[in-house]
Amino acid sequence: MDREMKETLDRLGVTLPKLPEPANSYVPGVAAEDWLYLSGQTPTVDGVLEYRGRCGDAIDIETGKKAARLAAINVLAELEHVAGVEKVVQVVKLTGYVASSDGFVDQPKVVDGASDLIADVFGERGRHARAAVGVASLPGGAPVEVDLVALIRS
Amino acid sequence: MDREMKETLDRLGVTLPKLPEPANSYVPGVAAEDWLYLSGQTPTVDGVLEYRGRCGDAIDIETGKKAARLAAINVLAELEHVAGVEKVVQVVKLTGYVASSDGFVDQPKVVDGASDLIADVFGERGRHARAAVGVASLPGGAPVEVDLVALIRS
Amino acid sequence: MDREMKETLDRLGVTLPKLPEPANSYVPGVAAEDWLYLSGQTPTVDGVLEYRGRCGDAIDIETGKKAARLAAINVLAELEHVAGVEKVVQVVKLTGYVASSDGFVDQPKVVDGASDLIADVFGERGRHARAAVGVASLPGGAPVEVDLVALIRS
Repeated sequence: MDREMKETLDRLGVTLPKLPEPANSYVPGVAAEDWLYLSGQTPTVDGVLEYRGRCGDAIDIETGKKAARLAAINVLAELEHVAGVEKVVQVVKLTGYVASSDGFVDQPKVVDGASDLIADVFGERGRHARAAVGVASLPGGAPVEVDLVALIRS
Repeated sequence: MDREMKETLDRLGVTLPKLPEPANSYVPGVAAEDWLYLSGQTPTVDGVLEYRGRCGDAIDIETGKKAARLAAINVLAELEHVAGVEKVVQVVKLTGYVASSDGFVDQPKVVDGASDLIADVFGERGRHARAAVGVASLPGGAPVEVDLVALIRS
Repeated sequence: MDREMKETLDRLGVTLPKLPEPANSYVPGVAAEDWLYLSGQTPTVDGVLEYRGRCGDAIDIETGKKAARLAAINVLAELEHVAGVEKVVQVVKLTGYVASSDGFVDQPKVVDGASDLIADVFGERGRHARAAVGVASLPGGAPVEVDLVALIRS
């Protein structure tokens, strides 16, 4: 990581974790031509969920937003692992899946926790297209899952 | 917009709205190299949902289809705003998220409201890959959300 | 299909079906530049669902995994139809949507049924980025839907 990116992350209070390698047929991310696809991440620390439950039930909007921010930090850790965060030319698409109770309709506010972090880290290069949807449930009981597509310098 | 596209939209009775800019860290769409990623849209007019509720509950298939068509019109408005509809070389992928009651399994019929519009507007260039899934809930209580990836002439 | 791929599929006991063409505005897949986007597939045989119900209810993890494998075989059939399986340079992203009861949180184990097949067929070229999410319901009552993005040799 270059010095400028390191200073940005420090200023935002973000430390990129070392993620456990998925013990499966999939990987944290794939770089192909100038494109980087990153796997969905949940709000885990050391592989353990820091938040659990559905938005609208156990999780309120503010907590959901923090969970989305943590999921996005884990996506950045994938990015660093696969390509290096300083390689990002443009973050292109972020999808935020929010585990939602029947009546919960504030998925955009929750996913802002991820979008704001990405925009804070990358500035103009971080302003992305987005979809935010409310799903029935997520791996391990996570309240939110985030994945990402970026254009990178190869 | 060129004359031919304008005539096509007129013939289909489609007026592209001016969308409210998302007041957030994300944007209506991102063009990178020859690719355009557009943010998820719901069936809003002037930022207010025209349809509300889940398919299988308040919303039947025909109404859901109209809602999907309106969401797709909003996606076209993003496309016009970010790149220009006449720049489309090929619509590549459309994802339709349908807010669904437990027993509702006709997501493809609902999302056809969006797919048909895209095919009507772009002809062969509009025939896309697609996923249609039933989600728990969507922003604001929308019955459907649509996003899109297209190849464009840069 | 080249001989090596045919032998791999034979060894895995995989026969690629001929899929019914979607009678709609969308298509099984779109190839654009070096990229291939494939439509979401459910675990059907000859257009009829082989598995039905939600994971956590009628469908347990092992059955869900088999359903995901079958959905992935149908995705490979799309790939063969649109471009040819031997054209794959890298499978880039797989999204697995799992119809889930409220308490079901083992989406990754279910989607492994798809991921493992893709990795078995393509080896290193098959190790992909992935998102696995739990949705309310899927077309026809399917327990799982899988779609895919790949880099291909054009």
